[in-house]
Amino acid sequence: MRPIVLCTDFGLEDHYVGVLHAVLERDAPGASRIDLSHLVPPGDVWEASYLLRCAWSHLPPEAVVLAVVDPGVGGGRRALAAAVGERLLVAPDNGLAAAMGPVGAAVALDWQRMGLPEPSRTFHGRDLFSPAAARLARGERLEELGEPVSPASLVSCPLPAPERTAGGWRAVVLHVDRFGSLVTNLAARDLAPEARITAGSHHGVRVVGTFSDGGPGEVVALEGSSGLLELAVNGGSAQAATSLGRGDAVLVAGG
Amino acid sequence: MRPIVLCTDFGLEDHYVGVLHAVLERDAPGASRIDLSHLVPPGDVWEASYLLRCAWSHLPPEAVVLAVVDPGVGGGRRALAAAVGERLLVAPDNGLAAAMGPVGAAVALDWQRMGLPEPSRTFHGRDLFSPAAARLARGERLEELGEPVSPASLVSCPLPAPERTAGGWRAVVLHVDRFGSLVTNLAARDLAPEARITAGSHHGVRVVGTFSDGGPGEVVALEGSSGLLELAVNGGSAQAATSLGRGDAVLVAGG
Amino acid sequence: MRPIVLCTDFGLEDHYVGVLHAVLERDAPGASRIDLSHLVPPGDVWEASYLLRCAWSHLPPEAVVLAVVDPGVGGGRRALAAAVGERLLVAPDNGLAAAMGPVGAAVALDWQRMGLPEPSRTFHGRDLFSPAAARLARGERLEELGEPVSPASLVSCPLPAPERTAGGWRAVVLHVDRFGSLVTNLAARDLAPEARITAGSHHGVRVVGTFSDGGPGEVVALEGSSGLLELAVNGGSAQAATSLGRGDAVLVAGG
Repeated sequence: MRPIVLCTDFGLEDHYVGVLHAVLERDAPGASRIDLSHLVPPGDVWEASYLLRCAWSHLPPEAVVLAVVDPGVGGGRRALAAAVGERLLVAPDNGLAAAMGPVGAAVALDWQRMGLPEPSRTFHGRDLFSPAAARLARGERLEELGEPVSPASLVSCPLPAPERTAGGWRAVVLHVDRFGSLVTNLAARDLAPEARITAGSHHGVRVVGTFSDGGPGEVVALEGSSGLLELAVNGGSAQAATSLGRGDAVLVAGG
Repeated sequence: MRPIVLCTDFGLEDHYVGVLHAVLERDAPGASRIDLSHLVPPGDVWEASYLLRCAWSHLPPEAVVLAVVDPGVGGGRRALAAAVGERLLVAPDNGLAAAMGPVGAAVALDWQRMGLPEPSRTFHGRDLFSPAAARLARGERLEELGEPVSPASLVSCPLPAPERTAGGWRAVVLHVDRFGSLVTNLAARDLAPEARITAGSHHGVRVVGTFSDGGPGEVVALEGSSGLLELAVNGGSAQAATSLGRGDAVLVAGG
Repeated sequence: MRPIVLCTDFGLEDHYVGVLHAVLERDAPGASRIDLSHLVPPGDVWEASYLLRCAWSHLPPEAVVLAVVDPGVGGGRRALAAAVGERLLVAPDNGLAAAMGPVGAAVALDWQRMGLPEPSRTFHGRDLFSPAAARLARGERLEELGEPVSPASLVSCPLPAPERTAGGWRAVVLHVDRFGSLVTNLAARDLAPEARITAGSHHGVRVVGTFSDGGPGEVVALEGSSGLLELAVNGGSAQAATSLGRGDAVLVAGG
């Protein structure tokens, strides 16, 4: 039985996440279930893409990822199951699959082919995506869940790439984490030793090895745990210190 | 081993939920555990009843539901285990059991009969309800946990039913979910095609099939995932748009 | 396979907790995992110590506790695995182990001895502590994880003890829970029957048996579920009623 990893924007106040688990327990009893996060802001595919991308290489190689951020539920958008490397992803066609890497194969989920009751129009997480994920966890193949669709036809990744500038980079903040650290989209390995970093009104941000290398209140840059350049304050919040947020620019000159 | 479904008002900041899991792991090792929600507002039996009722038909048929919203802990209120259909519920006598459906049988939990140490007076979730749920998960019968009590003597369901009016309904909002949708107590199937819906200052609310059928900012009505009439705004919040909250009226005229 | 109990300050918005679970699933498949809390405020070792101490005696006797509150990650602080009674704890050297009780043995985690890839400098929870916890869950001995260190050399417990005063106690609030109850560091059994309790501007606080013994709005004192004296308001919040918070004094006179 493949393990199942869940990521949604359902929050933890309602019964929605518990019901996904109940359906998975019913349809794939004994499968291990891992909650990545259910606090993705409502409808925020960028955020879900970021979280899944950071977690991706650490997930079990045989994982089935059930990712439901689905403002278009019940409308015209496709419901997908896709193979990305060895792992399988079940999600609306919203850019998440493409955010994980090259999609090897994909199908449009078909409740009739799966022998499911007709889904509600408002909770496909429960009625379509979870039963599909459970089938994959039990070892069914993609083709048993629906008709193949061209990977090239999938909605593209919502996460921006860093831009090359004259002698540097224009990165943007992808994510602000619980500790107030600002994670950018620039791979730390792309940073030249002589690079000068500007984050808001902070110029010449020092590059350090880890959080505790920073002085009191100092905004520092470092290689975060996903290999991305990130801004942090030792024991504080880089978000509060810089007033930067998601989508804001971080400039790298001279390297 | 029956799966155990947990629902409490314990929150996630404290150790309380983790300790329930630890007791269940000790007393029913290997039983699957599903967290429905632990963010029920303190003491809010209405909310717990709503969440459990919405989840109920999707829970494993053999589930043991451990529901602890218990402002009267250690006082005179009874502690119960009850059968509702095939499922079993362990909870204070606070209306939850009755909210799930007709109670087939119930017992008043008796720590001495169960061979437990004397419970604390402030944490029956840990000392009484979890050990009882674990015993049921292991296959013990209700009668092994305490003396039978009359199902008719249980505290009644806290959730209001919709009221018939001259040619229509007076429904109330049962729940506001994470997406700002207002879930009413009126079954969507009871809505006549020609019905006119009024929600606060919004008259003639349009009935649609799913969220994305709504125009920008438009308050729409639809059949939610539990079959109840709900008000929503596509990509927005019906709560914010209408200023309605739990207990507020939604009026249906002409049907 | 020993069960693993997790407690961190990682929050639930990010992917950090999910990644710990994924690593544990990879390295100790089939081990039961229990989340104690992940909402410890960032860097707050006091809070993690409190939660773990309250939960400790209820955890499975063979539990491996993975506790990551680690503002010094990647710097000079030691990474530990320690035996406290039968249970094992994996944590930075930050006072947590000492807070649980006498440490019988401890080792400094050594990634090379464990055959791990070189850890990142910013996420030892993922790269060092979780793999170590998984090894212990699988039955490896402490010595297989690193060199022994003297238990006496460990950072001491951050939680203050109550102080004896002339004829009484000066206790402090250790924790404010979700219900607004103020848990002190004074064991309730140390309270004499004739003791007079002062909490902020509330003098002569009445000692009762459980929450519902309190009158409307009345601040009462009682023995909480961990045996500590706690202040509460029936259906309300002692924090709001007294304006006391963590670290504030609660005075006991005449006993």
